[in-house]
Amino acid sequence: MMLLYDYWRSSAAYRVRIALNLKGLPYEAHSVHLVKDGGQQHQSDYRALNPQGLVPLLTDGSFRLNQSLAIIEYLEDTHPSPALLPADPQSKAQVRAFSQVIACDIHPLDNLRVLQYLTGPMEVSEERKLVWYQHWILEGFKALEKMAASYADAGPYCFGEQVTMADVCLIPQVYNADRFNCPMTDFPRLREINDNCLKLEAFQKATPEQQADAT
Amino acid sequence: MMLLYDYWRSSAAYRVRIALNLKGLPYEAHSVHLVKDGGQQHQSDYRALNPQGLVPLLTDGSFRLNQSLAIIEYLEDTHPSPALLPADPQSKAQVRAFSQVIACDIHPLDNLRVLQYLTGPMEVSEERKLVWYQHWILEGFKALEKMAASYADAGPYCFGEQVTMADVCLIPQVYNADRFNCPMTDFPRLREINDNCLKLEAFQKATPEQQADAT
Repeated sequence: MMLLYDYWRSSAAYRVRIALNLKGLPYEAHSVHLVKDGGQQHQSDYRALNPQGLVPLLTDGSFRLNQSLAIIEYLEDTHPSPALLPADPQSKAQVRAFSQVIACDIHPLDNLRVLQYLTGPMEVSEERKLVWYQHWILEGFKALEKMAASYADAGPYCFGEQVTMADVCLIPQVYNADRFNCPMTDFPRLREINDNCLKLEAFQKATPEQQADAT
Repeated sequence: MMLLYDYWRSSAAYRVRIALNLKGLPYEAHSVHLVKDGGQQHQSDYRALNPQGLVPLLTDGSFRLNQSLAIIEYLEDTHPSPALLPADPQSKAQVRAFSQVIACDIHPLDNLRVLQYLTGPMEVSEERKLVWYQHWILEGFKALEKMAASYADAGPYCFGEQVTMADVCLIPQVYNADRFNCPMTDFPRLREINDNCLKLEAFQKATPEQQADAT
């Protein structure tokens, strides 16, 4: 069985949990607590597995893989059904671009290690940290709302009738936006997609609060 | 012919230039000057093409695509030879993970809009901005050096005898590291791969200084 090094509040790990559930792949979750013990991801035994010291990490037999989008594409390559990417190259590219707006240009700016570095060595105040956090979500969501708008009549999800990797990335990011009180009024389509996805069991089971290490 | 919205110093655009050259695909470069006129990427005609207001953007006929890794995978899907990803799912996943360490966890923290936001609304000093810049490169390179080390005897490039998307991402990031005087002494393998890649014409032709908009 695959083993997922996981943390309930990690939105990159949340993406992988959704993808595993959508594909019906059983896995064992191994919690790496990002806050407790000064951050278990920094401990040498975990760094030996993942030199980045981040979650998620997936093991499939003796194969170890970091980076959430690489993991999701690996699941897609090895367990193609149900597909999380369209077959047509242009549609597939659009799903990847949407996903990367989140995975490259929103989330990495707001994750824990960056916030800690901002208020630590950069001496940014807690108040300004929140401004930073919301700024990058709002910047990214403006683009995503436009990217999703042209598919609004095509079905309940980002790119139509089928759930794709774009939805897998969007829902954890909306969770973060809500957690930090980002105003969502300008993003009605993203909110709608979020609500549609959360009707599905694969998404429900992956939510942070449903994880064994949630506190 | 494909059209690349490009900027000589954008390392995300640099990745796409390398990939186009490796695949022998002719393209027309359209410069979007990220500094002149307060940043041409913010102008409404460009935002209409790319709602993120970032480079690169590729057009292929009427098809428009943003996000450098999505573009490279699109080129791979539509022009598979020479391949920039291995066929084996596990090797392919490792190349993607390596690429994403750069494209998700190093570069987005150090790109122009983030540095401008740091010294602007976050009121971080120019001196500290440089500390920030180097910190994320060094953090990422530590992991990449370990990820590449196991392939050091397999060939001149990140993952052996064949150039992959990993090399396509690494070389622009080393360029940035050198530009901002990041100490590279702890990363002998990354330096070696960089030097090997820059012996190839596809990489040479893509370097910032070779672009028509270089100043």
